[in-house]
Amino acid sequence: MAFSPLVDELVESLRCLPGVGQKTAQRMAFHLLERGRSGGSRLSEALGKAMTGVRRCDRCQNFADTDLCGICENPQRTNGTICVVESPSDLLAIEQAGDYRGGYFVLMGHLSPIDGVGPEEIGIERLLDRIQQEGVSELILATNPTVEGEATAHYIADRLDGRGILITRLAHGIPVGGELGYVDGFTLTHAFRGRKPLSD
Amino acid sequence: MAFSPLVDELVESLRCLPGVGQKTAQRMAFHLLERGRSGGSRLSEALGKAMTGVRRCDRCQNFADTDLCGICENPQRTNGTICVVESPSDLLAIEQAGDYRGGYFVLMGHLSPIDGVGPEEIGIERLLDRIQQEGVSELILATNPTVEGEATAHYIADRLDGRGILITRLAHGIPVGGELGYVDGFTLTHAFRGRKPLSD
Repeated sequence: MAFSPLVDELVESLRCLPGVGQKTAQRMAFHLLERGRSGGSRLSEALGKAMTGVRRCDRCQNFADTDLCGICENPQRTNGTICVVESPSDLLAIEQAGDYRGGYFVLMGHLSPIDGVGPEEIGIERLLDRIQQEGVSELILATNPTVEGEATAHYIADRLDGRGILITRLAHGIPVGGELGYVDGFTLTHAFRGRKPLSD
Repeated sequence: MAFSPLVDELVESLRCLPGVGQKTAQRMAFHLLERGRSGGSRLSEALGKAMTGVRRCDRCQNFADTDLCGICENPQRTNGTICVVESPSDLLAIEQAGDYRGGYFVLMGHLSPIDGVGPEEIGIERLLDRIQQEGVSELILATNPTVEGEATAHYIADRLDGRGILITRLAHGIPVGGELGYVDGFTLTHAFRGRKPLSD
């Protein structure tokens, strides 16, 4: 850009955001400079604090400001149930649904030998240690229904074989409010196999 | 969010960016925390510097770090031609085309009485002063071909009536590489009226 090194640097830096290319970065920079300076300053401060201050929870690997995250610090949430998810955004989706009141374990990824991600990298040993220490009664494997997610779930289940822990997987079926005509065949097959008596 | 006030604040702050809602802000925050901490820190610094350091050029109203922007500081660009644009992104598009070598004047908007934007707000008096002082020979009105852009161009042209300055407007026509079948009727009419002998 011909006019300002500070603007150039801002545009270049904005490209670290996911899905933001040169044009979008320019639009964002001009928007902040023209109409959103206070928001931009606030974002600068929040980014600086988060990038240095946010760490991983010692117990569940989720993002946290202190040793333990807000969920692990809550004694009502440590009730012998652990839900294993791949990422903080999965955890957030479950929290926003609002029904589940147990603890979590965030893998921050999934098993993917081709990318060099083994059990050590996603903290499965730490999960097994925690299960042993805390006396967990149920482990809900809420990894994504993808090839890698399923493989990760099966690996964890295999490692816990014979320990007498109830291991569950989230149900597959028709999304609430969805239309049958738009549901794919695999999901429909799962929905048929998992059908329940109307009285339930 | 249940787990970290720092992450909450980051997500909330990211929403000041144009086109970024709650979900995108979450995705951006998690991406930076998981895989882009150095980029995030760099962005924080660039934002902080730009929000406090970027001002308007005294001569052309464009973004600048010092009193004059890079273009106005270049003596080869002050050759008696001024191109009037609505925004820095318009200026950037013209600069990237690479053909125009004169000066600019950035209105930072267009006349819009309904929004309370009059000639004073977009610096038209400053433009007229500059034209008088510098002895401009040609004024290119490169405002957008919208109702407000056309009105702004005509207002400026009216104010300069009788001063003996060549006032031009960018040509309308078929975009280079475009297909006739997809060009709208107004543009085609302009293209027909502006047709030129093949030898030009």
